[in-house]
Amino acid sequence: MPTYKLSLAYRGTAYAGWQRQENAVTVQEILEDALAGVLGEAVAVVGASRTDAGVHARGQTVHLRLAREVERGALVFGVNHRLPEDVRVLDAQRADDRFHARFAALGKEYRYRCIAAEVLSPFDAPFALRVERDLDRAALAAATATLVGRHDFTAFALAGGAHQDPVRTVTHAGWEARGAELDLVILGDGFLRGMVRGIAGTLLEIACGKRPASDVGRLLGGLPRGEAGPTAPAHGLCLERVFYDATGALAATESSSSLC
Amino acid sequence: MPTYKLSLAYRGTAYAGWQRQENAVTVQEILEDALAGVLGEAVAVVGASRTDAGVHARGQTVHLRLAREVERGALVFGVNHRLPEDVRVLDAQRADDRFHARFAALGKEYRYRCIAAEVLSPFDAPFALRVERDLDRAALAAATATLVGRHDFTAFALAGGAHQDPVRTVTHAGWEARGAELDLVILGDGFLRGMVRGIAGTLLEIACGKRPASDVGRLLGGLPRGEAGPTAPAHGLCLERVFYDATGALAATESSSSLC
Repeated sequence: MPTYKLSLAYRGTAYAGWQRQENAVTVQEILEDALAGVLGEAVAVVGASRTDAGVHARGQTVHLRLAREVERGALVFGVNHRLPEDVRVLDAQRADDRFHARFAALGKEYRYRCIAAEVLSPFDAPFALRVERDLDRAALAAATATLVGRHDFTAFALAGGAHQDPVRTVTHAGWEARGAELDLVILGDGFLRGMVRGIAGTLLEIACGKRPASDVGRLLGGLPRGEAGPTAPAHGLCLERVFYDATGALAATESSSSLC
Repeated sequence: MPTYKLSLAYRGTAYAGWQRQENAVTVQEILEDALAGVLGEAVAVVGASRTDAGVHARGQTVHLRLAREVERGALVFGVNHRLPEDVRVLDAQRADDRFHARFAALGKEYRYRCIAAEVLSPFDAPFALRVERDLDRAALAAATATLVGRHDFTAFALAGGAHQDPVRTVTHAGWEARGAELDLVILGDGFLRGMVRGIAGTLLEIACGKRPASDVGRLLGGLPRGEAGPTAPAHGLCLERVFYDATGALAATESSSSLC
């Protein structure tokens, strides 16, 4: 069946996450409804990442299989015309008929935005966590570097994920600073449910002096969730990109150099 | 009377502009209502710039005069607690009792955001104009440079402004490029109603080859509004800063170096 790959961006604020569910509006449902309206047939989409309620995406990737070929313009402009303004198809292309958005993904990049300010502007407040100005950046950098590698991330994950195996490989983790903003950028081959937010919440406790930087290494030994810091709020998190080839993942790692 | 200076940021999308008016919700009204709620008395505020319907602000400055002194925290956190999330008081400080937000302003900085992309992401769409990728940047730079100086800007202004004298001094005008984004940054001692949007609309016609770069010089001779290009949409425009001393204006000019 003709298979298409879509690149999607959304503000997660109004949605109960990516994955379709009863009694709550999700991005998957909104997208499937818009596709059905354009194509005149029920369409199921599969997303690379099951982003949680309130989490944003700049580069979610999805696939869909159709009974017949369709024009790219129908999938981009036709679907956007039916989508609410907080969800947009950025691109659509024909993919190999065996392409699977989740199983074919080699890696993902997430960004957790923090801004050190007394008051966040209305341009930043929906997308970033307000933090204190006097964070310990040396401790933050030391603790964050510990994350890179293949580890058991149980301590940082929320219950309810579909995964059985809690071992994941983080290929890059660092903080990018720009003015008052300080963002955690993390790349890996996959992420457990709530893992990036658990990591962000724990690292921010280290940056505030509430726990030692060495805690991260200890937690990566498979300690239970209660041992790590809180799950940082969803609105600071954004799925930036999904990688389907090693070149892309490598280029991303190099461009997101750590400044902190 | 104790006088306070507030720094304000707002998304203009939902508002009929800054200035209070009948039958439409404006930012001035929203702010005055929130202040009255906190202070228990009717409060009138004066804004440095009467931003038009749909125009955003990152650095609107306002003054208010009160019967008695109030704590800074009441003006920042107390007022923010009563404001909708698209309007925020970023700072408040006691000012000289003769301070006037509009009359004391030495200059203002505006930014008109353009993004060359097939589809704008939901993060950019409310704040930027979508433009074509093949803009003539050399023509754009040449035409934009012509704006700097003291000129009659009648050709770019909308009717209905409070001003009688159409002569203004532009101290800096240039385009900043970053990835697919290309922003007009313009500083001056004051701006006629709709002037930045008239300039943006005209410059974009030049960038598309619809008119020669030399048109700007001709229009600055006081030609009527109909001779210039269209008024660019409000949502791309943002009042970035208001300057009250020459040092501030100079620093801003230097930091907003033109890359185009």
